[in-house]
Order: sequence, then structure tokens, then C-alpha cells
Amino acid sequence: MEFGYSDKVEALRTRLNAFMEAHVLPANIAWHREAQEGRYPLGLIDRLKAKAYGEGLWNLFLPMLREDEPGTPLTNLEYAPLAEIMGRIPWSAEVFNCNAPDTGNMEILHMFGTPAQKAQWLAPLLDGSIRSCVGITEPDTASSDPTNLQTTILRDGDHYVVNGRKWFTTGAKHPNARFVIVMGLSDTRTDVDPHARHTMVIVPFDTPGVRIVRDVPIMHHHAPEGHCEVLFRDVRVPALNLLGEEGRGFAIAQARLGPGRVHHCMRTIGQCELALELMLDRAMERQTFGRHLSDYANIQDWIAESRIEIDQLRLQVLRAAWLMDRQGNQAARVEVSAIKVGAARLQTRVVDRAMQVFGAMGLTPDTPLAFLWTWGRALRFIDGPDEVHLRTIARDELKKAKARRGTSLAYLVPPYEHP
Amino acid sequence: MEFGYSDKVEALRTRLNAFMEAHVLPANIAWHREAQEGRYPLGLIDRLKAKAYGEGLWNLFLPMLREDEPGTPLTNLEYAPLAEIMGRIPWSAEVFNCNAPDTGNMEILHMFGTPAQKAQWLAPLLDGSIRSCVGITEPDTASSDPTNLQTTILRDGDHYVVNGRKWFTTGAKHPNARFVIVMGLSDTRTDVDPHARHTMVIVPFDTPGVRIVRDVPIMHHHAPEGHCEVLFRDVRVPALNLLGEEGRGFAIAQARLGPGRVHHCMRTIGQCELALELMLDRAMERQTFGRHLSDYANIQDWIAESRIEIDQLRLQVLRAAWLMDRQGNQAARVEVSAIKVGAARLQTRVVDRAMQVFGAMGLTPDTPLAFLWTWGRALRFIDGPDEVHLRTIARDELKKAKARRGTSLAYLVPPYEHP
Amino acid sequence: MEFGYSDKVEALRTRLNAFMEAHVLPANIAWHREAQEGRYPLGLIDRLKAKAYGEGLWNLFLPMLREDEPGTPLTNLEYAPLAEIMGRIPWSAEVFNCNAPDTGNMEILHMFGTPAQKAQWLAPLLDGSIRSCVGITEPDTASSDPTNLQTTILRDGDHYVVNGRKWFTTGAKHPNARFVIVMGLSDTRTDVDPHARHTMVIVPFDTPGVRIVRDVPIMHHHAPEGHCEVLFRDVRVPALNLLGEEGRGFAIAQARLGPGRVHHCMRTIGQCELALELMLDRAMERQTFGRHLSDYANIQDWIAESRIEIDQLRLQVLRAAWLMDRQGNQAARVEVSAIKVGAARLQTRVVDRAMQVFGAMGLTPDTPLAFLWTWGRALRFIDGPDEVHLRTIARDELKKAKARRGTSLAYLVPPYEHP
Amino acid sequence: MEFGYSDKVEALRTRLNAFMEAHVLPANIAWHREAQEGRYPLGLIDRLKAKAYGEGLWNLFLPMLREDEPGTPLTNLEYAPLAEIMGRIPWSAEVFNCNAPDTGNMEILHMFGTPAQKAQWLAPLLDGSIRSCVGITEPDTASSDPTNLQTTILRDGDHYVVNGRKWFTTGAKHPNARFVIVMGLSDTRTDVDPHARHTMVIVPFDTPGVRIVRDVPIMHHHAPEGHCEVLFRDVRVPALNLLGEEGRGFAIAQARLGPGRVHHCMRTIGQCELALELMLDRAMERQTFGRHLSDYANIQDWIAESRIEIDQLRLQVLRAAWLMDRQGNQAARVEVSAIKVGAARLQTRVVDRAMQVFGAMGLTPDTPLAFLWTWGRALRFIDGPDEVHLRTIARDELKKAKARRGTSLAYLVPPYEHP
Repeated sequence: MEFGYSDKVEALRTRLNAFMEAHVLPANIAWHREAQEGRYPLGLIDRLKAKAYGEGLWNLFLPMLREDEPGTPLTNLEYAPLAEIMGRIPWSAEVFNCNAPDTGNMEILHMFGTPAQKAQWLAPLLDGSIRSCVGITEPDTASSDPTNLQTTILRDGDHYVVNGRKWFTTGAKHPNARFVIVMGLSDTRTDVDPHARHTMVIVPFDTPGVRIVRDVPIMHHHAPEGHCEVLFRDVRVPALNLLGEEGRGFAIAQARLGPGRVHHCMRTIGQCELALELMLDRAMERQTFGRHLSDYANIQDWIAESRIEIDQLRLQVLRAAWLMDRQGNQAARVEVSAIKVGAARLQTRVVDRAMQVFGAMGLTPDTPLAFLWTWGRALRFIDGPDEVHLRTIARDELKKAKARRGTSLAYLVPPYEHP
Repeated sequence: MEFGYSDKVEALRTRLNAFMEAHVLPANIAWHREAQEGRYPLGLIDRLKAKAYGEGLWNLFLPMLREDEPGTPLTNLEYAPLAEIMGRIPWSAEVFNCNAPDTGNMEILHMFGTPAQKAQWLAPLLDGSIRSCVGITEPDTASSDPTNLQTTILRDGDHYVVNGRKWFTTGAKHPNARFVIVMGLSDTRTDVDPHARHTMVIVPFDTPGVRIVRDVPIMHHHAPEGHCEVLFRDVRVPALNLLGEEGRGFAIAQARLGPGRVHHCMRTIGQCELALELMLDRAMERQTFGRHLSDYANIQDWIAESRIEIDQLRLQVLRAAWLMDRQGNQAARVEVSAIKVGAARLQTRVVDRAMQVFGAMGLTPDTPLAFLWTWGRALRFIDGPDEVHLRTIARDELKKAKARRGTSLAYLVPPYEHP
Repeated sequence: MEFGYSDKVEALRTRLNAFMEAHVLPANIAWHREAQEGRYPLGLIDRLKAKAYGEGLWNLFLPMLREDEPGTPLTNLEYAPLAEIMGRIPWSAEVFNCNAPDTGNMEILHMFGTPAQKAQWLAPLLDGSIRSCVGITEPDTASSDPTNLQTTILRDGDHYVVNGRKWFTTGAKHPNARFVIVMGLSDTRTDVDPHARHTMVIVPFDTPGVRIVRDVPIMHHHAPEGHCEVLFRDVRVPALNLLGEEGRGFAIAQARLGPGRVHHCMRTIGQCELALELMLDRAMERQTFGRHLSDYANIQDWIAESRIEIDQLRLQVLRAAWLMDRQGNQAARVEVSAIKVGAARLQTRVVDRAMQVFGAMGLTPDTPLAFLWTWGRALRFIDGPDEVHLRTIARDELKKAKARRGTSLAYLVPPYEHP
Repeated sequence: MEFGYSDKVEALRTRLNAFMEAHVLPANIAWHREAQEGRYPLGLIDRLKAKAYGEGLWNLFLPMLREDEPGTPLTNLEYAPLAEIMGRIPWSAEVFNCNAPDTGNMEILHMFGTPAQKAQWLAPLLDGSIRSCVGITEPDTASSDPTNLQTTILRDGDHYVVNGRKWFTTGAKHPNARFVIVMGLSDTRTDVDPHARHTMVIVPFDTPGVRIVRDVPIMHHHAPEGHCEVLFRDVRVPALNLLGEEGRGFAIAQARLGPGRVHHCMRTIGQCELALELMLDRAMERQTFGRHLSDYANIQDWIAESRIEIDQLRLQVLRAAWLMDRQGNQAARVEVSAIKVGAARLQTRVVDRAMQVFGAMGLTPDTPLAFLWTWGRALRFIDGPDEVHLRTIARDELKKAKARRGTSLAYLVPPYEHP
């Protein structure tokens, strides 16, 4: 067992921190002012992307990069601490081409894409010239149980015809968004395995029948890239746009989720660290009733509890990344559910404390806290609500308990021998 | 002891509920669409106000109404259940001229206003033809300890000169907003009683030097009436605009707060009830993994805990209102702190559960939940952060304990007689 | 609505408080020393009982007292504040003949007993010359669902034959314990209504086949009256000992529970108040790092939160008592579940805080806290675990929601008209 | 970074698990029956000790073992997973001579003992022929701030004279207990550094003036080895019994605490795992209302949350052990405070859930849960209450924040340029 980062990771952290400090943080106010005015800060982003690309701080999330593809491939365990650093300024992931949901799309295109699909869609994603979306969640169904999804993707000759409504399609408003990977029902029979009825296809945004209905704010917040509601009405795409095989939508979605969740969790940790730093600085600066806030024991408790909880979560996330590297995404499935729940809950908890220390200012857009809180709240649904992940963990525990059933009984201390 | 509402209150509740159902609820979508487009739905509001005025559902919050003033005067205990009903549709309080912060301003004008001030400012407030604001919180000071307030209100001949910056000045963007009651430092000496250095004056919005700098969103939410940042630069108002006496700002602020907090708390309860109803309806409708959400024991726990907590809080708020009616606002000071903390915490807790049951939709503006949550979060600061109120309660307990000091020792069971 | 105690109640509270201070509290250490040595402090108790009986502070819990029966009948609402006072010294309820489970037994004998049963069992209970038990919970079944109960009570000619094992039979070790009311299965068919298969009979402790197997400690604590495991092996009692009718065991148990739960809850409140007093006295006395504990903001928060929570619970319990008086025990069923959950949870929460302020001493028998905590923990099962009561409340809410189904939908704000 | 146990550790875990299963677990009921009858199960223990000694599973906790000392020295990181295994049966640590407080005493005798002290006291501790205690906490002072300690240890010629009262002196009732290391005030001046006034001396139990006043139960539980109150009245010990130097009591106490806390935490984890196993087995076995408890979503949540929290804590404890091995106990001081708080809180939380699943049985001595809960509660004071450790962590965070003061301000997004 070894709890220190490797030299390679330490070196990368140093480089990334330096980049953030030299280039990203100084651009932060400009980014927000442009975004608050409703424009995507594309010029600013493009300038920073070029710089990061030049330094090789590019596609760091993708272990499976080939030699002819741009970027620096890292294991999940190596990438995780870098995601933490990027998390401190949420929009910065795009600078390093490490932004969701494109990261997940690049992964599944790598794994399941045909050579033609890779040439057409993966290559420009890898070099950052386009962006992409994924359409799974639907407004009218309880998508936490994805067998409920109702959008249809039906074969019609050489085409698939997509009909349905998706929402929380992140990135659909991005000026570079070119396609969305849609999951839907390709087999409408109700008497077959519900996990084998869904399929994924690539739908270019310029296909007739695709319409971005609105950008859905998350607790009043409009992301500049949008979390959009998208309507698909008789959308025809070539059958060649099928991703993987028909009926394998769940398997692909599953493959997609592990690393992405680790990224989310590590960014969350970076955001919790930032919230803690803000809380500390504010608590040392403010006075009420003749004492600094940092001198009040309740606020000291919040600080200490935040430190304990952040450190615990980071270790658990890193361990999950290590497990994925060693045994594959599927083997780490339950651990990933655990960090998913832990991270979403921690973010709102730590940020809430920081807000309370800031007072009313913590509610305004003048600090990162309001965004971090609402984003943390959204994380409690994104990629599955807490309750579904807790259920996954519990069922796994119950399965293991069943296998060793009764062994705990040996620890009981009966008061007498029953006759 | 008697826990039932009086016949008078039951009759009023019936009338108000009927009005809400017949007139307010049907206008709710229109109100939101107009507000979401950035316009204050003044026409809609004026129409409803006229109707409510006509029915005598007017100024219900103001026990001290005189016969020549419009409306129906009720005790705090009588009004509280009506505030709960209004709370379900937050904008509806204005329909009955029961909206904050005007309610508090009408109270203090009643109590401390000169005849001229009453004629000029109170009368149009009472008949709903103008609106008003109160400016206490400041962006650059820890306003939870109001002795920190830095805005100055200095006498200069026949005028007061106001300099400073206020924020979270609710209602400043309302088309009818005419004046703001500003609290500031009128005695800049540091060696005098810090609770006798602040004064309140009436500042018309059209006074030169008053500038609404921006509307500050609360967790990304822009209220149509605004929670504004207001700059006062060399603002001169006639000395006749002094409210009460110089140096009595705190006493007036204190008088202002009790009933207003009861109103907030009861509206909170109405909002929690609504959130619970939404949670119930959604849980009965949605299915995951073959069961309705309402069949899951964790969601049943949330429902039951919400019911318990709401009922407990309601009783406590009603008791505080009863105490204010019996013994005055000052006597109920600690009880009001208790309900203030309880309500702010409950609102985010119950609404959070409802959101989780709604899934992603709970984060959108398509349900009232996102607004109710962020408003609940703001309540944890409005009129003082939780920690200040908890401190008030604890200090009161400690004072009482000191008075009876040591009596609990009689309950100890020493193991032996110390020699 | 009226939140003050009536003059009658205030007078009774004054008398009871005076009695406690003059007679009970001074005997507290002696009671504990005798109990810690394993003897039931019967002499001490008898002396105090005689005094209370003489003052008419007797059977205060029993609204249905007849004129020829000893004691002062009070409504539930009148008795509740007195139970709070008794709760401060848990063993004191016996002094006033207000101790569980005899109170519940007296109620059901009043309601369902035959004249002969009343003469033989109720009369001596009412005058305090004997004590009694109730046997419901069983060690080998999940008794939270009482249809699981397995003890059999089968008719055999003029007798009932009882076979089974009960535990947590409170009072079985009391020197005056004379009988136990046993609930069991009188109809072993599995195809009939599971709520109509159980029956209650009166079993004198001296019946052959009744054996007290052991006194079961509750988290290591042995109550001097015992929470016993009792074995019934071929125990024959006359058919005349049937309580009510065959198959009506649940109905009787239900009737029994409402008032008893209110008593428990009010005693809990008295105990929470005592814990808070102890916490306050200790916090003012102790110093660490140069400050009194009472000066630390985290401890102030615990004090304030305890005050808020106790006050809320008291109001809710009193309201449930009021509802029982007005509409009967059955009508208050859901409210009683609410206070049952609330009280059990509050007791451990408040006492835990007090313990933490006491430091290690809080874990010893030198303060009442260790007992109050473990008793509070037991309350989370006694008369049904929290989860069962939460389920009851949730199901009631769902039933009401179903009745008004869909009304909350009118509060949604759809973003557009669906075509 | 590497999250797997080393081969060496895996081999040791296998051996220890096998020993536990073959020898310790089968003796568990006998141990408890003997202990419940008030006798220390010395014969049983001695038999198992001989076996463990023979297998080299001995003194595993002591990295600094010399070649001439019995046992297998391991690093803290190597020992930690073994402590987890021992924790499942709390009394088993003694079998491997890894029981507190002897472990800490052996450490400080190793570090600070004179050759004579080592020969007389350390050698028999290392071979398990005697046991020892440590006397720090006092009944009459807030010992969480140890500068409050009042016992005096005053030099008088060739002797030290000890006067005072200690309690929670664990092990004083053990039949083999031979000495206690007492900490007290050797410098009664009040104007000197309060951290340099305390001294430690070795006091044999047979010294005149030492009296075990009573065995103090922890929440009603009497440990067979006792947590005793010990009175020291004019107890004279040779000056050669001084441990380290006069006035260095705190430094020694500090050195003593790091590893011991890691041991406690890992045993806690073992106990939480056991509680979770019990909860799982029970939930799968019991039925209420037609479903197994394991099918209820609230109980599934408890299971999942327990799994998440246990795994997080284990990683954090292992990391602290790793840090102690790398950088020394002092460097890991804050991390050790973090795990101390985390473990004490987790134990009561997880065990409480398991108790609730067990129903009333969880309160009895028939399962390990009641003991594990009360012990967990005691852990919230042993080696310092939570609040002191949280304060340590917060002060460390504040110190670091001060060093980087203001850097978080760069993340604020001011709405405009202040003029």
C-alpha cells in the first residue's frame, strides 16, 4: 500500500497547476462576464485550448489514446488528481479537451465506433474542433430506471428513425456542438429482456426533425453550453450511424459511465477544496459580536468536518480509479456507485457550510458557491439518483451476505441453551 | 388549551382558499410566463388586488388598523393560518396587500410615523397604490451583527445625508416602489453604546444620489421585484423623514421583526405543505424497477418525516403568534428566533426531499420546487442567519439556568459520600 | 386557539411539583442505591404512595375513573403536563399509581373487563396494592408486525391453554406483580383475516407453567422491576380470564396504546428538559482552553436546538392528547404515531448532547443521562419501531393524497403548451 | 499509489483470520458467560495466549521490537489490517498481547524507560505475564483539556508522592494488573508554561495508598477488566519510577497516542463490519408486512451508507498509519485526530442501524451490538472528545489558510469594478 502520488503524477500536477494559475484563473472573470451576458466565450476558450494542446495537456482522460491521436494518455488513477485541479474552475475542463459529455463519447467511439464513425466523429472530437452530446434522460419517464425510456429508434430500410424527447442534453447550445448520441427503444416488444431493447445511434444536429426546444436551467442557472430539451420528430439517420449493435444500448451506456463518474467525483473534490478555502478566508476576515467567525466553535466544527469528509472521499475515489485500472470498469461498478453518492452529497454539504459563512454574499453570483451548490444538487441525479446507487450497493452487499449466509450468527451470545 | 382554529379563522380560511382557487391559482402560469420574460405582471396583479380589496381580504396582517384605514384587522394568531395559505403561491401575498417588506414598513409607520409621514407614505401603502423597501443589509459588512453597519445618515441642518451601499433591498425593481427606509449610523463616535448609534430615515427613490446598481440574483434566481443593490451617494432627505428618534434604529428594527418573521414562517409552512403534496402526487405516479416510488420505504420515510416536522413547526409558530398577541413582540423574542431557525431549515429539508422524488424535473422551473428551495436557503440569512438566532436562544437558556443555578445537581446520584 | 394551561392544570402542576420536590427528589439517591444493590425499593415506594394517595395525586392518568374508585380523573390533555413532571424521575410514576404498563391494563380492564375481572384485578390495581404486566413482544418473531406473534392461546373446554415465550415483559420482577395480560394466537388457521386471530387472556403469575426465565437488560441496564423473558408452557387459565372477545386481541391492544404513548412522550419531554438543565449547569461550570463550555458556539447550538426541538415536540404531544379527548383514540392514531417517533428520536438526541457536555461522567451511573439514553433507545422499539410508525404516517398521507389526487399538478408551470 | 495489501500483509491476515476462526470464535460464548458471571476468564485467555505466542502472532503492534523481545514487529500500516480483524471480538486483542492500554505502555517504556524500568516492567508486559494501566482522566476536572489535571506528583527526597483521583483506569480489575502509569502535576506554580508542569510516574498497584474505589460502568456496562476509579492518597514511589523527565508528561502522552488511536480506529472498523454483517443476515431472515426487511428501501439505504462510510474510514485510517510510518507520529497528528473523530462517530452510527434492524433483540446482551454501541459511545471521549479533535483539525486548517491567505479571493467574480 502506498498513499503518495507517483513522481509522474506529481510532475503533471505541478504543470497543470501552473497552467491554471498562469492562464485559466486570470481569464475567469472575463469568462463569467461573457457567459452572464448570454454568449459562449468561444474566443477565450479557443485561445486557451491552443495553448494547452501545445503543451500536451490534452485528452488526459483517455487511457486508450493511439499514437496517431493527439494528447497524453493516462491511467484513471493518474488522471484523477488532474481532474481535481480542473474542477476548481468548472469551465476549464474544455481547455484540456477533458469536458463531459465529450469525454464519454470519445471513449465509446473508441470502443464501439466503426472506422468510418471514428474518422467522421472521433477525430474532430479528439482534436477539439467539434463538440458532442448524449441524449438519454427524458422528461416524461422516470429515467432513473432506464428501461423506462420511451424514445424510439426504429429501423426503416437503410435508416433509423428517431422519435422522442430528451432533456438535460448537456452542450447542445455549444456553438461547436455537431451531434448527439441518442439512446432509445429499438425493440418495442414488451415480452423480451428489457435490458436488450435499447440502442444508441449518432444523430447529427443538422438532421431534419431535430429541434432544440429550450435550454433548461438547473435551479435557475443557465449553463452557457446549455442543458437542453431536444425534440426528435421522424429524424432519419443512416443505419451506419448505429453505435455498436442493436439492443446493446445499455451495455454501451454502462461502459461509458465508470470513468466519467470518477472524473465528476474528482472535480467535485476540487470544488469542495475551493469551497473550504473560501470558507476559511472568509471566516478569518469577518467579525461578529467582537470575534472573528473563525474563532466560533461551530464554524470550526464545519471546517474540520469538511476536511475529514473531503479527505475520505478523495481516497475512496482514487481507490475506485485504481480498481478500474486493475480490473476494468465493470469490476469497479459498485465502488463507482459508492463514490457517486458520496461526492454528490458531499458537494452540497461542504458548499452549504461555506455559503453560511459567507452570509448573503454566498447566494450571489459574486462567489463560485451558488453555482457549485446547484451543480452539486444536480449531481444527485446526473448519471443516476442517489437512491438508485444506494440500491446497487445494498443489493451487492446482500448478494455477498447470501453467499456467506449465517456466518455472523456465530457471533451471537445466546443466554442459555434452548431445550 | 385549545388546538382548533376559531370559527372566525375557519371562515376566513374558507374564504381565502376559495379566492386562491378561483382567482389566484388560475393566474399562476400567466404570472410566471410574464415574470420569466422579465416583466413585472402588474396588470394581472392589479386586477386581482382590486378583487381582493373588494372582498375585504386586505391588510389582514395589520392588527392595528384604524377604522378609517382599508382592510380587515386580525390578531397575529388569526392572521397566521391565512399567511400559510398565501405562502403556497408566493406572489399572492401582494394580492392581499400582505407582502413583505411593505407589511413591516406599514407596522413601523403606524407605530413611529408622524402624521405627515402617515399621510404621505402609510396611506398609499395601505391602499396598495405604492410599494416600499427597507435597506439594512450591506455588502461589505457582516450584517448579522447589525452594529457593524457602515452606511451613514448624518444630520446636516434641516437634512439628513445618506452615504452607503445596501443590498438585498427587496422590491426596489417593483414598478410601484416609491421609497426605502434606510438604517445607518447617525453617530460615528466609537465610544458610545453601539446599539444607540443607528437611525432610520425614509428615502424616496427619486432622491438624487440614489442608484439601483443591480438586481442581485439569489442562487441564480431573479425575483421580478428584485433584491437589489442600491447605492446612496450624498443623498439628502428632509429631517422630517426621520423615523422615530435619532439613535433608535435598532429599537424600531426590532419592533418591525416579530410579526414579519411569523408571516415568513407561516408562508414557509404553506410552501412545505405544497412541496409535500407534490412529492406525494409524484411518488404515486412514477414507477422504477416495477414499483411505484410511493411503495419504497425510504420515500415513505421522507413523507412521514415531512409530515411530522411540518406539524411541529406550525404549532410552534402559532404559539409564538399567540404569545405576541398576549405579551407583545418583545416578550416573544426568543420564541420568534426559534421559529425563524426552524422554518428556514425545514423549508430546504422538505423541498429537497420533494425534488429528489421529482428527479431532474425538480431542478427545472417547471415545478415550484427550485424556487422554493432557493428561497428557503435565503431564509437562512434573511432577518438574521441561523447561528445568530441559535445564539439568542442559547443565551436566554443560559440566563435562565444561571438564575436557577445548580438545581439540576439534585438529580445526580453520587456513588458514595465524598469524605 | 389557546396555548396556555388551564387554571386547573396549573394548580395541579404546582401541587405535583411541590410533591416531587418535597418527597420524591429527596428519596432519589436512596432509591438508586437500593436498586443498584438489586433490591426493589418497596418500603420507600410504599411510604410515598401512601402520601400521594392521601393527597389525591392518584390515578391521574385515568379519565374514566368512577366515583367509587380512588383517584382524580383527568382528561388526557390535563394529565399530559403532569406526566412530564413525573418523567423527570422515572420511578416516580409508581408513587402516583401512574406507572406503565399498569396504566394501560387499568384502561383495558375498565373498557373490556367483566365485573368479576374488575373486582379481582382492576380494584387492587386502582388502589395500588398489586402490579401487572403485559406480554406481547416475542423473542423469536418480528413483533413489529404483530400478526407474526406465535404464542398460542387455545380453548380447551373451560380453559385456555397458553404456550409460548414473551420478552420485554416489564414489571415481572416487581414484588407485587400478580398477573400478566398475554396476547396470542387463538385461531391457527392461516386462511382467515390475520388481524382477527389473536386473543388476550389474564394469566396470574402463580399459574403452573409460567416461568420467568431471565431479566433481560436493555443495553446492559437491569431495571429493578425487570423487563423479563417469560416462558408459558401448557399454562391453563379459566375461560373466564378471557379479556373481551376471542379474536379481538388487536382491537384491544390498539385501544390500549394511544394514551400510553402520550404518557411515554410526555415523560420523555420531562426527561429531555432535565437533560437540558444538566447540560446547561455543566456547561456553565466547566472550563477548557480558558473558556467555559457554555461560551463555545457549538455547545450553544446544541442548547438552542434542544430547546427548539423540545418545545416543538411538547406542542405536538399536547395536541395529540387534545385530539384524543375530542375525537377518541382511534381518530388520533396517526398523530400518536407521529409523536411516538418524534419522542423516541428526540430523547436520544438531546441526552446525547448532554452526555457529550458532561464528558466521561455522562457515561457513568452518577448522572441520570446513561439511563435516560438507553431508555430512549429502547423507546425506539417499545410500542413499535420508528419505521412502523413512519409507515403508518406515510400510508395515511398517501391515502389522503389519493383522495385529492392530482390537485398539486395545478401548481406546475409547464414551459410551453404540449402540442 | 497502490491500494492493495502487500503479500506479507495478506499472508498475515490469512493466518490471523484462521486463528480467530479456529480458536477465538469458538471460545466466545464461554468467555461471555464467565464474564457475565463476574469472573475474568483468565484460564481461557491464558490457553489462547500460549497458542498465539507459539505461532508468533504476538506483539504485532510494536514496530520497535528488539530481537531479544518476543513477537513479530510490524509497521503501523502492516498491523492496522490485523487490528481490524481482532476488533471483531473485542477481548481477542489480549490473546495476541495487543490490548490497550498495555500496548501504549509498552511503547512509551520502549521509548522513555530506563534499563531498570524495562527489565522490571516492560519485559513481563512483552511476554504477557502481567498487565498495566494508565491513569490520566480525573473525575473532578475537564480532562479534555489536560492542563486541567489536578492529581499531584511531588518530589520528596528520593520519592514522588502521588495524591489524587483517577477514573476510567482501564484494566485495573484485571487479575494480572501490576502497575499504573500516572500523570499528574509536578509543578504547582501557576505562572509557568501549563504544558510543562505535568509528569508521569510508574505506580505499582500494591503501593500503600492506592485504592480501587469502584469499577465504573460505561452506560451500565461493567468490563471484566474494569474501567476503575482509583484513589491515590499519599502514595510514595521511588524517584526511579519517574518516566522520562519531570515536566515532560504531555510530550510522553502525545507520543503514546498516535499508534493507539490507529489501533482503536481499525478495531472500530472491524466492529462496524461485524455490525453490518449482522444487519444483513438479520434483514434477510426477518419478515414484516409480507416482505423481508432486506427488501425495504430504507434498510437498503442503511446498508449501503454503512458500506460507503466504513470503506471511506478504513482508507483514511490506513493512510494515517502510512503517514506515521513515513513521517513519524507527530507529523500525522492532525490526520490522527481526523480518524479518531470519524471512527467514534461511525461506530455508533453503524451499530445503531444494525440494532434497529434487530429490533428489541439488538438491545439485549444476546448480540454484540449493545456492547459495541456503548463502547463506540465511550470512544467519543476516550483519548479526547470529538470536539477537541475537531478543534485541532480546524486550527490546523486555519493555520494553513493564514499562510496562503487571500488566494481564494482570486476565484471571486465581482459584478463590477468598484470605483
